[in-house]
Amino acid sequence: MTYHVNGDLVPASEATVSVRDRGFMYGDGAFETLRVYGGTPFEWDAHRDRLRRTAETLGFGDAVPDDLRERVDETLAANDLADAYLKVSVTRGVQPGKLTPGPDVDPTVVVYVSPLGRGGVDGDPVWDGPATVQTVRTRRPPDESFPADAKTHNYLPGILARIELRRAATDEFAADEAVMRTTDGYLAEGATSNCFFVDEGVLKTPSADLPILPGVTRSVVMDLAESEGFSVRTSRYAVDDLRDADEAFLTNSTWEIRPIESVDGIDVGIGPMTKLLARLYDERVEREHYDENDERERPDAETVEREERDE
Amino acid sequence: MTYHVNGDLVPASEATVSVRDRGFMYGDGAFETLRVYGGTPFEWDAHRDRLRRTAETLGFGDAVPDDLRERVDETLAANDLADAYLKVSVTRGVQPGKLTPGPDVDPTVVVYVSPLGRGGVDGDPVWDGPATVQTVRTRRPPDESFPADAKTHNYLPGILARIELRRAATDEFAADEAVMRTTDGYLAEGATSNCFFVDEGVLKTPSADLPILPGVTRSVVMDLAESEGFSVRTSRYAVDDLRDADEAFLTNSTWEIRPIESVDGIDVGIGPMTKLLARLYDERVEREHYDENDERERPDAETVEREERDE
Repeated sequence: MTYHVNGDLVPASEATVSVRDRGFMYGDGAFETLRVYGGTPFEWDAHRDRLRRTAETLGFGDAVPDDLRERVDETLAANDLADAYLKVSVTRGVQPGKLTPGPDVDPTVVVYVSPLGRGGVDGDPVWDGPATVQTVRTRRPPDESFPADAKTHNYLPGILARIELRRAATDEFAADEAVMRTTDGYLAEGATSNCFFVDEGVLKTPSADLPILPGVTRSVVMDLAESEGFSVRTSRYAVDDLRDADEAFLTNSTWEIRPIESVDGIDVGIGPMTKLLARLYDERVEREHYDENDERERPDAETVEREERDE
Repeated sequence: MTYHVNGDLVPASEATVSVRDRGFMYGDGAFETLRVYGGTPFEWDAHRDRLRRTAETLGFGDAVPDDLRERVDETLAANDLADAYLKVSVTRGVQPGKLTPGPDVDPTVVVYVSPLGRGGVDGDPVWDGPATVQTVRTRRPPDESFPADAKTHNYLPGILARIELRRAATDEFAADEAVMRTTDGYLAEGATSNCFFVDEGVLKTPSADLPILPGVTRSVVMDLAESEGFSVRTSRYAVDDLRDADEAFLTNSTWEIRPIESVDGIDVGIGPMTKLLARLYDERVEREHYDENDERERPDAETVEREERDE
């Protein structure tokens, strides 16, 4: 693979940052992960806007380069990729001094890419099957400690949540996603996903008033549901609401819509609303990203290494 | 400067890590900062033990190299430094996959160093004067979200706290340190320091039961106070207790003991216990690190750039 680092295309093996980069020393950076379908990043504007909002929260909004999309396109072209996993990071870069950030920012800008099979009606999901979900002890940090809607390189709670799954795993079973609660006990989100569930025909998901990262995919799914005339409700829910649901699923850019098979060992199951929303999502990807007459070869999801697909 | 990266001495300008290093992508690493006096790191064992504990919390305790001290000594020798600021980072390195950490860890190990004037009775403090302190909105994350006693590359709350100071600064005044409260409102700690205050002859500091990082310097100061027969009390305090104190000071490895001049504009002032503890601290450094007959030249604190000294 070829990455894009500070304006240059470089082999992934040679893509480096200074050990004094604040992204490395303090996680002082913003990032986004997204999918590319048929050569075009899905929901680019939403991801770019959130990247800028995160950088603004960190006090370096102006440092997000205006030509970010060009860098993304150059990276895709250099790797000859039409269907891909894409990640963009912007950090505060190297500065004199220590913890206190200086006002002059020469950002570090990295575009990562790897092949990921096409989406849409003809695509295969990147996951192996419906998700088994487990509630973990690690709580989502409150907004006053970590601004919840900022997607930063400070990703420790998600890592600790996933480590809890690893420690609880047996030879026979390892859960796919860790679900975190808020510090006051409400259902928050997965380590890298948002949670949805269906209760008596109503689609429900934790409110963005809670300390969650309101995902781009979450927003697309809510739009799709509303455009089909479904009631969508955002509120404070308990983990029990998820366990007792008629259907439940997780969303993120990579997984798209992934049904939840079980929560803490309690079967939830896939149902018609999950299937319909997944189909509507696929159709939207198809409509916006693939020309029926486009005959380009694309990597198959199955050829992508499993370890590249865990989120 | 010459740094030590993964076993090699390299010029600081060429000291890099992969953009796929988990320390960079997620702040998935442990670090320590310490001072070197007369060629020997102060409280090395305490810092090494905490580094290992942090790595254990992150699930890669075994990856902290046994020869870490040798790497530190090699770095000091390569830079011909007897008195220095030292930072050691150990991250989970590059792994396949995304957020979920794998069990096989090839860690990234970095030793940073920069000149910092000698400590002890003959040394100058690295700070310009007593600290002006300001309470900020950013709260210290609760332990169930971020293990408080782990010193990781996830340092965002401290950065946001310092940004609050920057935004509140005027041409005439900028506070030196941001003091954070816990989410339930108790006095916690500074962005890079622990807080102490004196109330009717008793030395008080927030309890390690609260989500604070119990500093190595904090522990040394408590020992010094107790060995002089002073009462030391750890408990839950309000910011008002700090504001109303007879004396107050901050501690960290770099600052050592830095008196607090004011809290939120309210004068606190330096007093006899602060002065005595600073003297005892200096004497301990002197006794353990400097031989009276050692005539080696040392950099003077005044020759160190101000920006190298902000914590």
